[in-house]
Amino acid sequence: MTGPEQRAPKQDRSRITRERLLGASIDLLATQGWAATTVGAVAAAAGVSRGAAQHHFPTREDLITAALEHMIEQRVESVRAVGLELPEPGPDRTVAVVRLIVEHYTSDLFKAALQVWTAAASDPALADRVLPLETAMSREVLGIAAAALERDPSDARVRRALQTTLDLARGLGLADVLSDDSGRRDKIIRFWAQTMDEVLDDAGKSHPVTGGRGPF
Amino acid sequence: MTGPEQRAPKQDRSRITRERLLGASIDLLATQGWAATTVGAVAAAAGVSRGAAQHHFPTREDLITAALEHMIEQRVESVRAVGLELPEPGPDRTVAVVRLIVEHYTSDLFKAALQVWTAAASDPALADRVLPLETAMSREVLGIAAAALERDPSDARVRRALQTTLDLARGLGLADVLSDDSGRRDKIIRFWAQTMDEVLDDAGKSHPVTGGRGPF
Repeated sequence: MTGPEQRAPKQDRSRITRERLLGASIDLLATQGWAATTVGAVAAAAGVSRGAAQHHFPTREDLITAALEHMIEQRVESVRAVGLELPEPGPDRTVAVVRLIVEHYTSDLFKAALQVWTAAASDPALADRVLPLETAMSREVLGIAAAALERDPSDARVRRALQTTLDLARGLGLADVLSDDSGRRDKIIRFWAQTMDEVLDDAGKSHPVTGGRGPF
Repeated sequence: MTGPEQRAPKQDRSRITRERLLGASIDLLATQGWAATTVGAVAAAAGVSRGAAQHHFPTREDLITAALEHMIEQRVESVRAVGLELPEPGPDRTVAVVRLIVEHYTSDLFKAALQVWTAAASDPALADRVLPLETAMSREVLGIAAAALERDPSDARVRRALQTTLDLARGLGLADVLSDDSGRRDKIIRFWAQTMDEVLDDAGKSHPVTGGRGPF
């Protein structure tokens, strides 16, 4: 075995090549669509030889699944990071959390994922590969949202409300594909945030209310 | 000008050919995806010659836009027809209306439309053609839902709640593409129906409450 100091440069180059391929896949999917996102096109967009691309990812499905997985990890990390900078608990925080989730579903990652989901609709083998990614992503985002809202995710009503938020965000993301829908979307975000607070407060918060319903 | 009795048979044949092409387009889009839905493939699936297909629809965009428009009309009619058979006003009716809208977005029409929307994401000219269809469909479904729920669609809060229902339905439709999601979906339908009743009843109904909150 060689020591890390000897392996590092080659490993670094390999890692950089891999990440460029993954990033180029997401860009191509989001902007050019499924049919245009071949291993050859991704390699060209990433400035990598087709052979090197195929060394990392033997098939198009390998490449695209890895790209989705990588981007989901990055997005979940960024959602988590924004989650640390939210307003004080209260209506403003709920709006911020709903907006965070909706923005997740109007990102380039969503536009790329939409291409893959739509292709998977007529390709069961592809669906089998992407479904676990989508399930894991939903679970992560749900957990982050529950923590940010200081709600108990083991409460069925909280879980239902947060799942509704994710489904709504997915629908808003789909509407955003056809046209810039941001004005209408903002109104729906505020409406749903207020509604969710009302419906969950009626059912009792999962922890003692600690003030925080005022401006701060 | 020839009289209707002389025109009818030829017109009938033409209309039947047209409808077969439109139906085959939706089937192919929903099951085989965008790339597979060419004028030639649709003509073959419909048992129509390619020349006859091109006589009706010179381009693939003409065919697919006409197919979406035709199916939207049919779906809106069927939503309207079911709307006449709803339970008495009350919680059961709200669940039935939300379910009707969600079923609209989990139908084959939605699966076909999803293929077109996703293709339109990287094709602005196609987006320009399908956006008005989507806008008109949303407006129709919204109007039917407001009438069925006996809510005033000119009330901003009612409009917001119904738009949220449509966005949620679109998101549930998208989730349904990857896997059979019907169990979870049913819970979300019930949760949202109850939530919408609560939030709109708080804000005051648009008409005097006429009983109907009991079992019937």
